[in-house]
Amino acid sequence: MKTFYAATHLEHSPKEEFEQGRAAPTVEIPERVEQVKRRLEERKIGPLLKPKAFGDEAILRIHDSDFVRFLTGAYPKWREKYWNDDADAVPSVWPARGLREMRDGDIEKQLGSYCFDTATPIGKGTWSAAREAVNIALSAAEAVHSGERAAFALARPPGHHASGDVYGGYCYLNNVAIAAQWLRDQGRRPAILDVDYHHGNGTQAIFYRRDDVLFASIHADPAFAYPHYLGYADEKGEGAGEEKNINFPLPRKTAWPEYSHALDRALKAVKDFGTDILLVSLGLDTFEGDPICRFKITTEDYLRMGEIIGRAGLPSVFVFEGGYNIEHLGVNTVNVLEGFLEV
Amino acid sequence: MKTFYAATHLEHSPKEEFEQGRAAPTVEIPERVEQVKRRLEERKIGPLLKPKAFGDEAILRIHDSDFVRFLTGAYPKWREKYWNDDADAVPSVWPARGLREMRDGDIEKQLGSYCFDTATPIGKGTWSAAREAVNIALSAAEAVHSGERAAFALARPPGHHASGDVYGGYCYLNNVAIAAQWLRDQGRRPAILDVDYHHGNGTQAIFYRRDDVLFASIHADPAFAYPHYLGYADEKGEGAGEEKNINFPLPRKTAWPEYSHALDRALKAVKDFGTDILLVSLGLDTFEGDPICRFKITTEDYLRMGEIIGRAGLPSVFVFEGGYNIEHLGVNTVNVLEGFLEV
Repeated sequence: MKTFYAATHLEHSPKEEFEQGRAAPTVEIPERVEQVKRRLEERKIGPLLKPKAFGDEAILRIHDSDFVRFLTGAYPKWREKYWNDDADAVPSVWPARGLREMRDGDIEKQLGSYCFDTATPIGKGTWSAAREAVNIALSAAEAVHSGERAAFALARPPGHHASGDVYGGYCYLNNVAIAAQWLRDQGRRPAILDVDYHHGNGTQAIFYRRDDVLFASIHADPAFAYPHYLGYADEKGEGAGEEKNINFPLPRKTAWPEYSHALDRALKAVKDFGTDILLVSLGLDTFEGDPICRFKITTEDYLRMGEIIGRAGLPSVFVFEGGYNIEHLGVNTVNVLEGFLEV
Repeated sequence: MKTFYAATHLEHSPKEEFEQGRAAPTVEIPERVEQVKRRLEERKIGPLLKPKAFGDEAILRIHDSDFVRFLTGAYPKWREKYWNDDADAVPSVWPARGLREMRDGDIEKQLGSYCFDTATPIGKGTWSAAREAVNIALSAAEAVHSGERAAFALARPPGHHASGDVYGGYCYLNNVAIAAQWLRDQGRRPAILDVDYHHGNGTQAIFYRRDDVLFASIHADPAFAYPHYLGYADEKGEGAGEEKNINFPLPRKTAWPEYSHALDRALKAVKDFGTDILLVSLGLDTFEGDPICRFKITTEDYLRMGEIIGRAGLPSVFVFEGGYNIEHLGVNTVNVLEGFLEV
């Protein structure tokens, strides 16, 4: 299986996030991707390739141009305002009920208008890393579209929490959504299976009113887990998109038996949709040893997860999302890919 | 002049706020009120009185009952969730565009649904202090309604950023709005003059569609200053409230000549409204030495500010809001009151 990778992500290295009333070291760190890369090389899964440079058109099919313009210029603008400090850009005020949503002007105002959390800092290397992550996802999509059985986009920062005009959850541009749209534009019929612990609220929002891309997500119930405000079972799509959005919110401590049941149901929906190419938002934070999550999926289970996905018999694009147990992240990620290849 | 004060506020002592990409020590500290209290005693402005206990009805005339219920129970709920930590409750994710606004359930979800910034922690003593601040404002309003020329509500936490169902900006319950409503309910015709450096977005939102309470605010232009999303000159009230909301956004480095010009205009509007009782949201963060603000009002100017307000010839309720230069806060605050009394 071809893997697409670029070192650009190393420059995106936020120092801290703000959660539970405190500043804490960020968990979405460069070492995540480096660990997976090492394991891929160790297991000789296939070549590690540089991504091709795609133009902005593919991004603008998914994201609003004002949003992309904001992201491109946010860090220099922040630095200009706070020239005597080196903290990354994080919103501290936002347009809640009764306030005016204003996307122009002061950088503080813009941050609050485009972001939905305090966990997603914009630093010096953020934009270039986010931009390159899109190239990585598109390169993997192109490889599979061109005939590969599967490809892996070892992209960072992740993407599934970013919607058309809002970022958050460590995500800036929605890599998997941009890849799905690109495949759609090549005439394919893509479905997205999101197995990250956290609901892919951005991906859902992007395709919520559309009947040409299916979104199925298995995740921790937002009643107790991030992102809290989306990912409930009653969200089934709207208008043309009705019944084309399927959420499987699961309780704390979910282990493989219950998880695999949801996975079977999600893949049945994918097949019923008439999918001819599958995109997998591959988060490994369902792992029993994840520092910030509460599922009980084991290293062995990830092999089975890959097998089950492989048995769907669809050309598949794996796009890297979350997973924060650095020690086991490489093995767990590659286990999914190896399980897939064993079928 | 009678001053109303209670020591309850001492228990509301947040440790930090999150701004400019960092956790920083909070500036809205108990010592603020204590400094003013000392100066009042030194200058023998009048008796320091305990507030009367008013019932919740007065609060519920302004704030939604679900909001009040949330504030009452937020801290215990937060402690229950994060029992192994002692950080105060601060939102870290909120329902931006495309997310569902959900006010029930998990405390993290509720915080993001009821709050608009990361500067307003809820700690152990927050609710009781906010509740007592309302009693203080109401006691001052009652004193003036009963015939006093003026009274001072030395209340903390401040209130003018809190709207009917959203808190933020160090504010939880809107003391001045609750007092204005109480006066309205006694048949008075109140106007609110807000001289805090920051726009009183909460107060504006509360009365924006009403013709029976005038709101006039002089503040730093939200194009560069907090709260960013409200306080522009084009916000003039809506429906019945049209032309009953007047904003004077002023540029950085505004000094007394320009400031007093806006003050004259604001007081003219107050008189034209047929006001029979004035409430002043008294923020002292317009001071040239304020650590977080950018105006150039001097200690001397505050005497003149009090005189100008006094010359309006209206029974006046002063309600304490912002001001963060601890060293000069007592003198500046009392200067306004002394200026008023000299007329």
